[in-house]
Amino acid sequence: MTPEATGLQLRSTVRQDGTLEVSLARVPIPDPKPEEVVVRVDASPINPSDLGLMLAGADLTTVAVSGSSADPVVTARIAPALFRGLAGRVGQSLPVGNEGAGVVVRAGSSDQARALLGKTVAVLGGAMYAQFRAIRASQCLVLPEGTTPAQGASCFVNPLTALGMVETMRLEGHSALAHTAAASNLGQMLQKICLKDGVELVNIVRSPEHVNLLRDIGARHVVVSSAPTFMDDLTAAFVATGATLAFDAVGGGRLASQILSCMEVATNRTAKEYSRYGSTKHKQVYIYGGLDRGPTELTRNFGMAWGIGGWLLTAFLTRVGPAAAQKLRERVAAEIQTTFASHYTKEVSLAEALRSEEIAVYGKQATGQKYLINPNKGL
Amino acid sequence: MTPEATGLQLRSTVRQDGTLEVSLARVPIPDPKPEEVVVRVDASPINPSDLGLMLAGADLTTVAVSGSSADPVVTARIAPALFRGLAGRVGQSLPVGNEGAGVVVRAGSSDQARALLGKTVAVLGGAMYAQFRAIRASQCLVLPEGTTPAQGASCFVNPLTALGMVETMRLEGHSALAHTAAASNLGQMLQKICLKDGVELVNIVRSPEHVNLLRDIGARHVVVSSAPTFMDDLTAAFVATGATLAFDAVGGGRLASQILSCMEVATNRTAKEYSRYGSTKHKQVYIYGGLDRGPTELTRNFGMAWGIGGWLLTAFLTRVGPAAAQKLRERVAAEIQTTFASHYTKEVSLAEALRSEEIAVYGKQATGQKYLINPNKGL
Repeated sequence: MTPEATGLQLRSTVRQDGTLEVSLARVPIPDPKPEEVVVRVDASPINPSDLGLMLAGADLTTVAVSGSSADPVVTARIAPALFRGLAGRVGQSLPVGNEGAGVVVRAGSSDQARALLGKTVAVLGGAMYAQFRAIRASQCLVLPEGTTPAQGASCFVNPLTALGMVETMRLEGHSALAHTAAASNLGQMLQKICLKDGVELVNIVRSPEHVNLLRDIGARHVVVSSAPTFMDDLTAAFVATGATLAFDAVGGGRLASQILSCMEVATNRTAKEYSRYGSTKHKQVYIYGGLDRGPTELTRNFGMAWGIGGWLLTAFLTRVGPAAAQKLRERVAAEIQTTFASHYTKEVSLAEALRSEEIAVYGKQATGQKYLINPNKGL
Repeated sequence: MTPEATGLQLRSTVRQDGTLEVSLARVPIPDPKPEEVVVRVDASPINPSDLGLMLAGADLTTVAVSGSSADPVVTARIAPALFRGLAGRVGQSLPVGNEGAGVVVRAGSSDQARALLGKTVAVLGGAMYAQFRAIRASQCLVLPEGTTPAQGASCFVNPLTALGMVETMRLEGHSALAHTAAASNLGQMLQKICLKDGVELVNIVRSPEHVNLLRDIGARHVVVSSAPTFMDDLTAAFVATGATLAFDAVGGGRLASQILSCMEVATNRTAKEYSRYGSTKHKQVYIYGGLDRGPTELTRNFGMAWGIGGWLLTAFLTRVGPAAAQKLRERVAAEIQTTFASHYTKEVSLAEALRSEEIAVYGKQATGQKYLINPNKGL
């Protein structure tokens, strides 16, 4: 197979006038350096973390698409309050796509690189929404024989995040954990990990429809945040599990605060005497996503031993160090078709990903609406 | 001096019907055990942390006082949302008053106790809003010769909190810090400590009137939160100092969020390339008070490397351990008339403290409105 001289790459730009532009650039495929390979990207998921970079928080009701269907240009307006936080990227045409998988079609002269020729590999490298991606051979995770690029597309972000949550729980002295938007691909992985590792997990879902999805994979604690009994249900789950750590994908609204309140009630239920500052057991919520971009509202009726903070996969991997990170990656590769299997509702090409009707669907980040980009689809 | 057989003690009760009751109980003065002394409490400050236990978050517009002027009974209503969090103390008559100072009037048989007879000591022990307090001799901090009980009344809560803030800054890898409600007694102490220790401090005050108070003791960075230029001023102060840690006495509203936003802008101003998840420098706000009991609102426009949490003196002292805590206490005693000097607007007796017009003043926790209770005043 002869690689072409150029390939398409998805680019996102925040313009000085406060608008977002997303389009496809035709870029040369670099000659691989000795220790590099060129991967033909056949599958790359649209994760919420990709949407942050790609759509820059733009108002999706203002999306307009110009250009041809093969070469579309998407524009949308960014609210002034958000635009201020984007100063660092204004005017820069940024490639997008954290992770993906494909076949190594060219290799540099080193042995390590040449050994990968023809192999199906998974890559976490950024700029994966592209037909071709040059990358160091050492950054390629070789997928087990028989794994397709679509099956291996999500080897890193969701699996390592789910593993990172359980690892953070251990590192910070908690014995069980909770997770919001729990019916997501990530949530299902987390439940499977917890079952395998014997860790109690409280799943918080938004809709009753998602309860069975989690029950079917073995979930013991599933709480519906839209139910009138939510606070009581959640408290009961915290009493049952002892969870004092939660990972929240929602971010905005009162959910994080409600979690802390219920944890406080649960921990005090076993307390022997009144503690004026509340439970001395530290209760922690990490916000790792922003499904609700509105403000987070904390009622602070949960004593003084509490924390809320951002949680980011890259910061976690830095914290545990390269050896521990590599062990996690190897576990993912070994269990990619079981524990870490992902499900997609639709596969689209780069150009199809820029259709307004598709943006309207995947931009909502609804549970069970996950897209896979195949940059070489139909080309 | 012969101690009386009984003494008055202030008590706070949250009743099952959702009301607060504060009154004076006449309690026997215990015979000191061998290692104990009895302190005649001559001065005990009303700190915000005392008000939490004493007033239980009750709605101060509903305060009613019955009984005689010498034996008043205060009642007030507690909002249902807050009442839920008080379940652990319902029906219990709790003594109040974290700290204070006075003269040792009786001593147990041990040498250590007898050595304290007649000495002026400071005590952190709870139940200090009382004429007499029996306490272990080892818990008494002997004040330097010539120190009055009023001068030594606030040896612990504010001084150790201020020292704890600077110590937390060091422990968690920050190089400068910020403080809200900075014109308070605590804030002034913190500024004096920072000047002595060569630590940069960003003082955030609510009103322009408080700027000079801090400037007069040597503050270099004072920012007024009610000014239209607040966000720019605060960002400039963070650029100048590099502060990525703040201690917030306010709690409610948007102040904590604004602090994180300005820290993020300040840290990004020196960044070399766009980081999609914001600055990787961890930014932290600790809420240690609740001057605004309303919800905390976080806009989350400050990247992913951030945290907010509760900060409590007792948890800090546990964290650093007894030897470090003792060193801090000794520093306080040595500098009680300089760095750690407190100022009070009014001295009241126990009964006077329960007058509705006094509650209305100290209940507001306004800067420069600090009360000292003298439980033996006029008795």
